[in-house]
Amino acid sequence: MTNPVSAGPAAPSRRDGSGVDPDADNGATYAVASFAAGAAARGAGSTRTDAVLMALVDTVAVAVAGCDTPAVAALLSLLEAEPAPGECSIWGSDVRVGPSTAALVNGTAAHALDWDDASPTMPMHPGAVLLPAMVARARLTPVTTDRFVSAYAVGSAVFRAVSEVLPLEVHYGRGWHNTSTTGRLAATAAVATLAGIDVETTRHALGLAASVASGSLANFGTMTKPLHAGLAARDAVTAVALAERGLTARTTQLEAPGGFFALFGETDAATLARLSERLRRWEDGWSDDWAIKRYPSCYATHRAIDAVLDLRQGLDLAGISSVEVTVHRGGLKPLLPHLPSSGLEGKFSLAYTVARALQTGGVRLGDFSNEAVLDPGVRPLMDAVVVREQADPDDPGSIAPFTVLTVRTRDGGTHTRRVDVSRGDSRNPLSPRELEEKAIDAFGSVGWTPGQTKGLLSEVTALWRGGDLTALQHVLAGRSVTTSAGVRRAEV
Amino acid sequence: MTNPVSAGPAAPSRRDGSGVDPDADNGATYAVASFAAGAAARGAGSTRTDAVLMALVDTVAVAVAGCDTPAVAALLSLLEAEPAPGECSIWGSDVRVGPSTAALVNGTAAHALDWDDASPTMPMHPGAVLLPAMVARARLTPVTTDRFVSAYAVGSAVFRAVSEVLPLEVHYGRGWHNTSTTGRLAATAAVATLAGIDVETTRHALGLAASVASGSLANFGTMTKPLHAGLAARDAVTAVALAERGLTARTTQLEAPGGFFALFGETDAATLARLSERLRRWEDGWSDDWAIKRYPSCYATHRAIDAVLDLRQGLDLAGISSVEVTVHRGGLKPLLPHLPSSGLEGKFSLAYTVARALQTGGVRLGDFSNEAVLDPGVRPLMDAVVVREQADPDDPGSIAPFTVLTVRTRDGGTHTRRVDVSRGDSRNPLSPRELEEKAIDAFGSVGWTPGQTKGLLSEVTALWRGGDLTALQHVLAGRSVTTSAGVRRAEV
Repeated sequence: MTNPVSAGPAAPSRRDGSGVDPDADNGATYAVASFAAGAAARGAGSTRTDAVLMALVDTVAVAVAGCDTPAVAALLSLLEAEPAPGECSIWGSDVRVGPSTAALVNGTAAHALDWDDASPTMPMHPGAVLLPAMVARARLTPVTTDRFVSAYAVGSAVFRAVSEVLPLEVHYGRGWHNTSTTGRLAATAAVATLAGIDVETTRHALGLAASVASGSLANFGTMTKPLHAGLAARDAVTAVALAERGLTARTTQLEAPGGFFALFGETDAATLARLSERLRRWEDGWSDDWAIKRYPSCYATHRAIDAVLDLRQGLDLAGISSVEVTVHRGGLKPLLPHLPSSGLEGKFSLAYTVARALQTGGVRLGDFSNEAVLDPGVRPLMDAVVVREQADPDDPGSIAPFTVLTVRTRDGGTHTRRVDVSRGDSRNPLSPRELEEKAIDAFGSVGWTPGQTKGLLSEVTALWRGGDLTALQHVLAGRSVTTSAGVRRAEV
Repeated sequence: MTNPVSAGPAAPSRRDGSGVDPDADNGATYAVASFAAGAAARGAGSTRTDAVLMALVDTVAVAVAGCDTPAVAALLSLLEAEPAPGECSIWGSDVRVGPSTAALVNGTAAHALDWDDASPTMPMHPGAVLLPAMVARARLTPVTTDRFVSAYAVGSAVFRAVSEVLPLEVHYGRGWHNTSTTGRLAATAAVATLAGIDVETTRHALGLAASVASGSLANFGTMTKPLHAGLAARDAVTAVALAERGLTARTTQLEAPGGFFALFGETDAATLARLSERLRRWEDGWSDDWAIKRYPSCYATHRAIDAVLDLRQGLDLAGISSVEVTVHRGGLKPLLPHLPSSGLEGKFSLAYTVARALQTGGVRLGDFSNEAVLDPGVRPLMDAVVVREQADPDDPGSIAPFTVLTVRTRDGGTHTRRVDVSRGDSRNPLSPRELEEKAIDAFGSVGWTPGQTKGLLSEVTALWRGGDLTALQHVLAGRSVTTSAGVRRAEV
């Protein structure tokens, strides 16, 4: 046993009146902070402006639908016992709370259905973490669309660049939920940009965010998983607010011994030194490596569903003898090896999602109730589905994702489709109409009519194009709804 | 790059209507949860009852003094922007907030001066994490002294046993702040015991707490360090409250792949299997491995200060030629290698604390202002101090902590004292009068008179002996004070 050490020596900080770390301006913390603080000068860019509007619409839609989940019901129930009065909306309702609580609830709701946007080449969900934090902060600091877009680009770039530097196979491989760990730094950088704080204050905020970064993959499949996104959003709002109020953290926290990169994944100095270059790369690049999820199921089911929708026309379902689904090496890892026994499990089942898509020509939110998954009408098709993994025969070293679907019929017919890029991927994007359809499905799940949903989307778009987001909180509140969770969300 | 995986397969949970993990009742999560849920049946024990009262008095005293720090000022300032109305007191004030916020502020305040209790053989600060969380929860669930003591014993045992199983050299060695990481599980177990929730609900609470466990040693010496204690206390209150409201986590989270023990420190199955035995050992054992800090400086300075106070009587300070301080191997690690330039740095300086103790015959809170540390009157003595580390000559393999102090005078005199067990250690405990003196110093720093402090201690003791802690919140609010931080704490 060692002697207890109650506290280490004081790290230098201007606020303690002591010296400045000589390496402070060459490290990773400085790189992220100066990248965030310099965003306003770099400007928004028109491509990113459109992409951030899509991300916002998509995130709000899945969050409103996600409010009707037990995870969010638990949070809202706790709010009754521990009120957090304020002027930030819980999206799609007239419930108003303080900024950090709004970020917590909206972030959790946005991730609750596993329907929020993703990066096709990195396990991260930017929208559900960044946007709830940013919208909450935008209530305090009225912002233009340009600044909002710049801040989102900063958040996306930090998310991606830090995830690459960690590196992922150590970080994610060890069991850290990247969306929640790296996500805290990313959202903190985005909120700092929005708040317009200086480099030094941003470094304190990042240092503080690093000390709350957390989230375990072992909690996947439970309600704690969506909570990870909400907690990351909340902590970003709080980290910036506390840094603005003089709370100090180590200003070289990310690269320090025992700091963020040391704790969350081994990295080497050369990789760390490339952080600034990676940040610049992803400031624009994220919008080319981004996917809006068309279907409310695990992203690893999406290519198969796309393939079904491509080839089902004219098929006689009753005549199907087998459905073979072949995915790239490792592509089954996030999926269930057995038939699902609940709605939540259905989201992780190729057998169920493929069978349901064959049957109905679409996979929608209502298909993931416990009843729908156990529906005897879909069982024969599920039983016909055979799933396997394969290394890419054309390139044994590649792990580029793909899915090949082969349907065989009793009359000897064979129908095959290969999908490499899923619908909703930025290389094959949803049309505005398809995004609207998704929003209508999402809002409809908590009782909105298509007309009401379209009205809200119009309002958000008008505000966006107008360039002033001061009224964003008000518009996102929309019309009040009552969720089946039975919590206090005002009646229409 | 790998394919993004949006979520893993659902972990079984009774609340999802799916199956039960066959290993669920043999693992670490079950061991901690059943230990917590069984506490009421095991009873309090009279030794522990006295020890917990001392821990409570000590923690409240250092927290009230700690309110007058910039870290707490930042939190209270944020509370003005984001109010959290409720009926829990911020100790020593008439400010009332919700339970989780009270735990956050009181926990941060309790750790802010590095004056809170410690374990002599493990780097952990139980009181500052456990008691703010427990007192906040006790507002919601009126509890007896017996149950409170049982819950504190559970928290202390979980703190210690989990810290041993991690193991520490990997966990603390990698850079995790044990007080904040293990502290979250410990406080969650203590609050669960207090709340009287069942084993299953406790497992969900522990699984959730594991996903917010965090805190980096790189933030030592900044205001984020005391925040770690407050955040751990807050998250424990929230984890239990959310689990009670149906939020699920993996019920085998601690031992699962990618779970708590995998993320925070490699351990082996055999060690993990001894967790129940370690819990039973420390349920009583903590009170024999516990130290109340007499001086408001790093615990690694305490033996030296004790030695000074033992031998200074009759010494002519002006005649001192040198002061040699020799500590055990590794004993200088938490301390500053240079002379301090601020009050905070003074807490980590053997030269300053030894010189000040020589000069005044005591080391008190007022000695750690920036002015006191830079006082030219103490500099000549500081310059006379020589510090070194030494392996124990009697036992080269031992790292049992000790300090040898040798004062040489110009007239050729040599005065030596060796201290192995510091004052305040349970093997050499503070007397009730000495604890009262510490409390008077602490409360006095924010304007309480000795009489007012004694009055509060009497009230707490009476409540404690009466066996019903329903009025604890009210009593701990005490008389209102105004801190120099200038934040909204009501005038007297």
